Formats: sequence, structure tokens, C-alpha cells
Amino acid sequence: MAVYTDITEIDLKRFLTEYDVGELLSYKGIAEGVENSNFLLHTTRDPLILTLYEKRVEKSDLPFFLGLMHHLASRGLNCPLPLPRRDGALLGELSGRPAAMISFLEGMWLRKPEARHCGEVGKALASMHLAGDGFEITRPNALSLDGWKGLWEKSVDRADEVQKGLQDEISADLTHLAAHWPADLPTGVIHADLFQDNVFFLNDELSGLIDFYFACNDMLAYDVSICLNAWCFEADGSFNRDKGAAMLEGYRSVRPLSDAEIAALPLLAHGSALRFFLTRLYDWLTTPAGALVVKKDPLEYLGKLRFHRQVLSATEYGLEA
Amino acid sequence: MAVYTDITEIDLKRFLTEYDVGELLSYKGIAEGVENSNFLLHTTRDPLILTLYEKRVEKSDLPFFLGLMHHLASRGLNCPLPLPRRDGALLGELSGRPAAMISFLEGMWLRKPEARHCGEVGKALASMHLAGDGFEITRPNALSLDGWKGLWEKSVDRADEVQKGLQDEISADLTHLAAHWPADLPTGVIHADLFQDNVFFLNDELSGLIDFYFACNDMLAYDVSICLNAWCFEADGSFNRDKGAAMLEGYRSVRPLSDAEIAALPLLAHGSALRFFLTRLYDWLTTPAGALVVKKDPLEYLGKLRFHRQVLSATEYGLEA
Repeated sequence: MAVYTDITEIDLKRFLTEYDVGELLSYKGIAEGVENSNFLLHTTRDPLILTLYEKRVEKSDLPFFLGLMHHLASRGLNCPLPLPRRDGALLGELSGRPAAMISFLEGMWLRKPEARHCGEVGKALASMHLAGDGFEITRPNALSLDGWKGLWEKSVDRADEVQKGLQDEISADLTHLAAHWPADLPTGVIHADLFQDNVFFLNDELSGLIDFYFACNDMLAYDVSICLNAWCFEADGSFNRDKGAAMLEGYRSVRPLSDAEIAALPLLAHGSALRFFLTRLYDWLTTPAGALVVKKDPLEYLGKLRFHRQVLSATEYGLEA
Repeated sequence: MAVYTDITEIDLKRFLTEYDVGELLSYKGIAEGVENSNFLLHTTRDPLILTLYEKRVEKSDLPFFLGLMHHLASRGLNCPLPLPRRDGALLGELSGRPAAMISFLEGMWLRKPEARHCGEVGKALASMHLAGDGFEITRPNALSLDGWKGLWEKSVDRADEVQKGLQDEISADLTHLAAHWPADLPTGVIHADLFQDNVFFLNDELSGLIDFYFACNDMLAYDVSICLNAWCFEADGSFNRDKGAAMLEGYRSVRPLSDAEIAALPLLAHGSALRFFLTRLYDWLTTPAGALVVKKDPLEYLGKLRFHRQVLSATEYGLEA
């Protein structure tokens, strides 16, 4: 749930005079997104999302995020489109926060996706990777190897509180990944957080991707590995090969994966599982009881990274040779 | 904020087959209401609110609440209208909760109302009191004298933790109110919770009343006193006579107040301030840290009840003699 900053109708109306959006009819704080405050606006024209960027988002990153959505939408990807103000800017300020108006995408995220949906996600991810080509701003991935080390240094002393032996196990993983992390795979703009709640469907068809606030430049195949982790495990922790196969075939039908990318997938998936394990572990150890954010269990991703650690080749994910 | 129960798109689509509402396009949990889970639905027709009734609402009270909205809307009051299912029922079940589909009212609640808005609220409250006439189900006010005594018994031992001396002060208030509580003022259906967030405005005109989940049968003037408490005090705790005058004149322009009602207003306002003080005190003492509900400060209402305790006549609220 996320409405960290409330807004008065007076401030909102003043803010909206900078936009050509018709007349405001209502605004409701919505319980989606954990980083920012989001409001669904009804106007005499189309519905809109108003996002107030909270402290966890770096203001200097906003031109990248908003420019990227604009770039992707202009290349035909179904994603939210930031509305320019009358002066052309994509960003304003409201209730002391940077704020943007963004088109509202109809559609629903799937609480229980099936293999065919994973196939659609693979295709959409590949389409996004192609559409990202030519976007001129860059943003390094703050949550790659160096970021993991930083998170781990802040958590390592207390890691065994979560599960005995974690201190040694994760330290060894980090050493292994640092020694073998690929350096020459194709890179581009990646979504980096394409979980279920960031993909909308209408009548079983994928209708759009949202929430580009972790997007950055990194290996495209790393983004694929994030989706394998996010979409292809069952609630009992087991990997579903049908989903993995659908995801990877869907992706390859739009953007082929090179042999080197395929060979690297188990290591990349091990790394991306570690990435989500580490942020969840850090939040788990540091979020005070009573915070509005629901803490996610780091152990879910511990199971996933252990799975990938023993995977020998991408055929175990369901990929046809 | 309030989304206590999540729903899957599969369950929701099955639920919607019972209704004639067009095709579902999206649903978003909204951060309003503290008792229930509310979702804003977009369909190929009009937007709708889906409410899942959580544990604090008695299921046996739902026919009263839903029937009342239906009754009031049919009498021309702008309030949400429960949609009947194909079988005529106003209530269904979703995710294990009683659930209803309700029309969505455009409009915004005012974070900083002015006296003219209080006048509109007074008129709308009186209109609701008149429109409630003829509604055949009844529901006693569980939060009147007996309810207050029950809440106080559960809190009295720890009351001095909140402010020293409260134990004696509030016990004396309860004795005084019980001895003098009016018995023969006009009664009817009251809203009983008409705070700012339950009144919508569009372009400075009141566009509707929402949230009838505390509605019950009680003295109509008691409902007026709740609104005096909710709308006519400033953030510094002072009573604003201009707002009080506007509220009472607005009310009287639609439904006259009898001499007995006017004479009873200070005592009723003392009682209604005590009612909100007691529920907030109880929640303050019992809500665990970490709950999703934001605890409201009971001391705000302590100040209000102390104010009303020394009011001699309704002229102090701004009422013209």
C-alpha cells in the first residue's frame, strides 16, 4: 500500500492548471507501488495517474525514468506515457514532492499467471528491449555486483538471525558471482523489476507494462533472468519448466538470445535471485515494526538462489536446445 | 488506508457475472475508509466501487446499510447506490467476505473546508434526515450512552496513561450525561459519521454523501452535533463560530430545529465529542504498533468535549436567537 503524502484539492487544482487535462472530477489514493504515492484521477477526459516521488527515488533519476517511458511509448510499447506540462516539462512539484502526471493503463495484473501468460511476458520484455534502443540517457544499475556487496556489508552481521549459516553461504555466492559475472553480453535498457504487479492483462492479452522506476542499463539477458525468478516459480518454491519454456520461447520469438546469453542464464538467474534476496533481507532487518510497507520474506529468494546455484544449463529452465 | 483483503482477477470476474455492469477493465485498491476494503473498478460502462466488508462490520447490519443507501438515493439524495445482482440481492460474497457493488460518486472531500462549505453540509444533513423518513429497517445506535459505558469500562484503568486526571473527569461526564440525556427529541435515521472525508464537493458545490456504515436510528439533533464537532473546529482546537453559524443555518433552512433541540445542542455536542473521544481512546490503548490503521489522537476530542461542557446555549455555536 502506498499513499505516503496526502494532497489537498486546492494544491491539486493549482498543479493541474499547468496541464491540459480537462476538469478534475475526483482523485483517490491507490494501494499500489511501494516506492511512491499514487493517485487515480478522473477528469472530464481520460483517467490519469498522478505520482508523487518519495524519498527512496533519487530526483536526479527522474529524467531517465520519465524520458524512458516517453521513448518506449513513442516506439509503440504499451506503457504509461508521462504528460508534458504546458511548458513542455514532464515533471512538476506538488505537496513538496516531485510529481508527474501519467496516462492510466486499463488492465489487471494476474495473481495466478499461467504458462501462456509467461509467454506473453517474454514477448513484451523482448519488445521493450528492442524499443529501448536509441534512448540517449543512461543510468547504471545500482543493484548489480557493487550494490549487492554494499547491501551485504550492512546485513552480514545479522544474517544468521534469519537462517543459521547464511553468513558463510551468501559470502561465498558473492565471491563466486564476482569472479564469473559476464562482461561482454548484449546490454541495453532493462526494466529490472518486471514482477506480476507490473504487467497488465485484458482478456488474457497483455495490455501493458508499468513501473519503470528500477529501469537502468545492464545486460538484457539479466532482465530475462529476473522474469524467470518473478514468474516461473510456484508458491511451494518449485520451478515450473512449462512457464520457463514459455517465457524463454516468447522472448526468443521477438529477440533471439545468443549462445553466450543462453549459457550465462543460470549464473544471471543466480545473481538476480541474490539481488532480490539482499534487498528483502536488508528491509527485513531494518524496517521498523509499524511501518506501512509490508515486509517481503527474504527466504523466498533464498530458495530461488539455491535452485539456480545448482542449475547446469538453460535446458533446466525448459529451453529447447 | 484500507485494503485488508486482496482479490484475484479470476474471483472478481466470476463475482461480476452476477451483475449487469459491462466488461471489467481494471480494479485498484483505494486508500479510503478504515473499516472495509474498497476497490475502484473501471468497466466498459460507469466506474464502480466494490466494497468487501471486513470483520468490524456486523454482517447482520448490512441489509440496513445497503437498504438505506437505496432508500436515500431513491428519494433524490446524492449518495452511492448499491447495484442489485441479477437475482435482486444487494449483497454477494467475494474472497470469503460479504461484498457489494456500489455506484461511484465523482467529487472530492475538502481537506480545508470553509464556512460556506459547512453551510452546504448542514443543508445536506437535513436533506438526508428528511429523506430517511419512511425507511423501514431500524438499527439502534450502538455508540450511544450504553456503548460509551462499555468502552469506558474497557479503558478506564489505563486512561490516566493518556492524561492524568482523565479517570475522574470522564467518569463524571458519563454520570452527568446519563442523568440529563434527552429522551423526547425528534428521531430518525442519522449518518452518525459525517466527517470531511465523507462529503464530496465539485466546484464548491456539495456533490454527495458517502459511507453510511455508522448510520442508525437516533436523535436528529445529535447528528447535527456530530457535524459541529467534525467541521467547526480549527486545527488549533478553537471553535469557529462562523462555521457553526453556517452549519446550523444551512440545516435550519431545510429542516427547522425545535426549541427543545436547540436547547439540547450543547449537551448533545458534549455527548458526541465524548463518543469520538472514547472510540479513539480505546483504539489508542488497544491497536498494536504495526497495524495498518493510523491511530487518531483521542486528545483532539478531549479538547472538544471540554469546550462543550462549558457552553451555556447554542448561541455560542453561532446560532441566531
